[in-house]
Amino acid sequence: MSEHTQWNKLESAARRLQVLRHQVWQANMDLQRHQLVTFTWGNVSGIDRESGLVVIKPSGVEYAELSADNMVVVDLQGHVVEGDLNPSSDTATHLALYRQYPAIGGIVHTHSPQATAWAQAGRAIPALGTTHADYFYGPIACTRALTDQEIAEAYELNTGKVIVETIADADVMASPGILVKEHAPFTWGKDPHQAVHNAVVVEVVAGMALQTLQLNAGVSSLNQALLDKHYLRKHGANAYYGQTNK
Amino acid sequence: MSEHTQWNKLESAARRLQVLRHQVWQANMDLQRHQLVTFTWGNVSGIDRESGLVVIKPSGVEYAELSADNMVVVDLQGHVVEGDLNPSSDTATHLALYRQYPAIGGIVHTHSPQATAWAQAGRAIPALGTTHADYFYGPIACTRALTDQEIAEAYELNTGKVIVETIADADVMASPGILVKEHAPFTWGKDPHQAVHNAVVVEVVAGMALQTLQLNAGVSSLNQALLDKHYLRKHGANAYYGQTNK
Amino acid sequence: MSEHTQWNKLESAARRLQVLRHQVWQANMDLQRHQLVTFTWGNVSGIDRESGLVVIKPSGVEYAELSADNMVVVDLQGHVVEGDLNPSSDTATHLALYRQYPAIGGIVHTHSPQATAWAQAGRAIPALGTTHADYFYGPIACTRALTDQEIAEAYELNTGKVIVETIADADVMASPGILVKEHAPFTWGKDPHQAVHNAVVVEVVAGMALQTLQLNAGVSSLNQALLDKHYLRKHGANAYYGQTNK
Amino acid sequence: MSEHTQWNKLESAARRLQVLRHQVWQANMDLQRHQLVTFTWGNVSGIDRESGLVVIKPSGVEYAELSADNMVVVDLQGHVVEGDLNPSSDTATHLALYRQYPAIGGIVHTHSPQATAWAQAGRAIPALGTTHADYFYGPIACTRALTDQEIAEAYELNTGKVIVETIADADVMASPGILVKEHAPFTWGKDPHQAVHNAVVVEVVAGMALQTLQLNAGVSSLNQALLDKHYLRKHGANAYYGQTNK
Repeated sequence: MSEHTQWNKLESAARRLQVLRHQVWQANMDLQRHQLVTFTWGNVSGIDRESGLVVIKPSGVEYAELSADNMVVVDLQGHVVEGDLNPSSDTATHLALYRQYPAIGGIVHTHSPQATAWAQAGRAIPALGTTHADYFYGPIACTRALTDQEIAEAYELNTGKVIVETIADADVMASPGILVKEHAPFTWGKDPHQAVHNAVVVEVVAGMALQTLQLNAGVSSLNQALLDKHYLRKHGANAYYGQTNK
Repeated sequence: MSEHTQWNKLESAARRLQVLRHQVWQANMDLQRHQLVTFTWGNVSGIDRESGLVVIKPSGVEYAELSADNMVVVDLQGHVVEGDLNPSSDTATHLALYRQYPAIGGIVHTHSPQATAWAQAGRAIPALGTTHADYFYGPIACTRALTDQEIAEAYELNTGKVIVETIADADVMASPGILVKEHAPFTWGKDPHQAVHNAVVVEVVAGMALQTLQLNAGVSSLNQALLDKHYLRKHGANAYYGQTNK
Repeated sequence: MSEHTQWNKLESAARRLQVLRHQVWQANMDLQRHQLVTFTWGNVSGIDRESGLVVIKPSGVEYAELSADNMVVVDLQGHVVEGDLNPSSDTATHLALYRQYPAIGGIVHTHSPQATAWAQAGRAIPALGTTHADYFYGPIACTRALTDQEIAEAYELNTGKVIVETIADADVMASPGILVKEHAPFTWGKDPHQAVHNAVVVEVVAGMALQTLQLNAGVSSLNQALLDKHYLRKHGANAYYGQTNK
Repeated sequence: MSEHTQWNKLESAARRLQVLRHQVWQANMDLQRHQLVTFTWGNVSGIDRESGLVVIKPSGVEYAELSADNMVVVDLQGHVVEGDLNPSSDTATHLALYRQYPAIGGIVHTHSPQATAWAQAGRAIPALGTTHADYFYGPIACTRALTDQEIAEAYELNTGKVIVETIADADVMASPGILVKEHAPFTWGKDPHQAVHNAVVVEVVAGMALQTLQLNAGVSSLNQALLDKHYLRKHGANAYYGQTNK
């Protein structure tokens, strides 16, 4: 590779990272706009797959003080590459998911109250309606609890591992979120913006599902035909929702 | 008909359609103002009965990008007459209702959370108080689930058909809304504005009814006398609510 | 009485009425500010005891269109004395209370959702905490249902009568609100402003009480000592809350 | 002590008190911003430990009328040292806590609805998730009810005493809040700002815990390992959340 080519590559990598910083900052601010966070209880990251660099919110910084410039850049092993602040304390969880699933481009963690209630209850959110099926092709799973050893040794990394264990062989992008037992939801998407979108969906769907159970304790989940119809009209090869097939 | 008369007719049709575009756009924006929609999960349409043309929200477009100009005009068979965007994916449901019920001038579909919980629970909302009776002359019905075949073949059209089947012989304007099982509410009115008004009512009444059941699981519906009194003081021939009898 | 004295009396009555119009308009707007009303589902009135004239919101007029000028003035028998619009359809209920209780200076009716749920459930709100006891010296009662005949003959007047019947020998100002079964709350106070204040209290207390029962189905009401303490430190002869004893 | 030194001491005490007045006023306004209060149902105080003076909200004054200047200054025995208004009617409760616990720098009392529901139910809020464990190192306790004699004799002081009795030998700063039975929450912190922060946490956690129980009536509290992990990663000697270890 000529010096010139290498220079161009570096320059475009730097430019991509700058764009990503801005996207991740914007996505963090959107958490607040969508009323998903209290104080600093949430974080968004995004990855530049070509360089393997991840941009993530700094830990414990108020939303009013966030900017594209104080986002932290880490590599996939968690070393800080750029930034003066500590990255989110949940960074190791994000990285475990990025390492495992190449399709993920952005990750969100919140303690949004209704989804958190399901996580605290240790229950998966069943697919009870088309609102759910428009985004999640089946229930929103809940992990098992971590063992004492997993908690003591490498808590945030093991949180990522238990998410991966729960997803198992499922299509990670067809159910773009999960509840960590006794903790709260994580969601993801092709980019940080879509990950935030899915975080909103999980919160709304969680609230609807609780009320549904209060009205009909024995309600059953959607049958496969309706699940297919709604998920695939938005996401399948023959999707016809929106303007993408124009 | 002289050329002149025909020209006048066309001109006034075009003017009516322009007014309707504006009304439908405004009514879509009102969904957001009344906090009935998350993202793009809702749509409003309106019909010009003289020309048989229906104005409806484009599919999957953010509320911030909507305008009177990008509303889509379709005929009662669903052919796009004006507009560059795809009409709402629920268009066939709207059209089924317009074809069946000449009194309907506007239709709304939302996934407002409390009404959606009832739809997911598969329960009609009983008339438990005068708030309900002021707008709905009896329970807000819930359809049966669609069969796998109905879902696979012409889902949105069949959603309209199952609404019509549920209304059966009832007065469609005396109970201007319905819950589609496992899905969400549809409401209607003499125009798009009134359809939105009724969408708000369904959401509020749904929330009140859940809380009422939590306080008194065995509560009974309003008796006929109170239902008559409230519905008819607003809607009957001798209505005396408001300023219309001045 | 000299002509001059009579003139002065009339002039001051007119001035008082003008002030009351403004207070009643402001109190109606406050219903919206406190998020107690959807659309036009609420009304406030106030009385000038010297002249026996009542100022009340017009029926079915949007909040944005209300002004001190379009408030309606009626006498205690319900004859319109000033104003081009119909008075609230609930006027006869307000007047029944003003006629019965000389201490009442303002009345509010809303369909605020949490209080309405209790009314629909036909349950009095028990005094479960000091928030309640700060304003209501005992449970917030719920009326019986009206009979078919009471509904058919003079519905709004009979609504007032059933409120009076429920209050019976109690001190009307020590429990300044009530739930009308299958309908919604009415509250009152020494003036329209205080009546709105009490309408907020009923709504907040109703929501807390439902959640309390969900956490402890067998909870008992406050004992007399705590009820006395909180109510009397704000309202008794030896009240020491606030700045009134300075 | 020379006159000069004494003068300097007085001057710096006055300056500290001025800063504290501003902090306490700001913290009171924050109660409203965080939607923890209806009307005047809440108060914040702060203490200057060097002088033993406490700054507290005046009783029953609307938030719009509060300023740093009308905050009231009292000594630890409750004598008003500065200010024309009555101090909060709950002052004696605040002072009992300041006298007992030298680590407390600020105290908040609200009637925030979800926490109040737990207080009315007479139930401690169990630690059901990491949101809780990030701030409270165990359940949020609920006091016993006061006896009739305690209510009659020195109600607000005895409220403070029953809080102290409930905390018993526990670390007061590791569980910085409590529910007073049939009443509402009190929270505290190293300063007024942190006390408000903890008041928000109690409200959010109370709402999540109710929903959790509705989803899983038999849910168990966090085990010690997860409680340790979350509390100590934020508060322990080896805390790594946020930027404090930079």
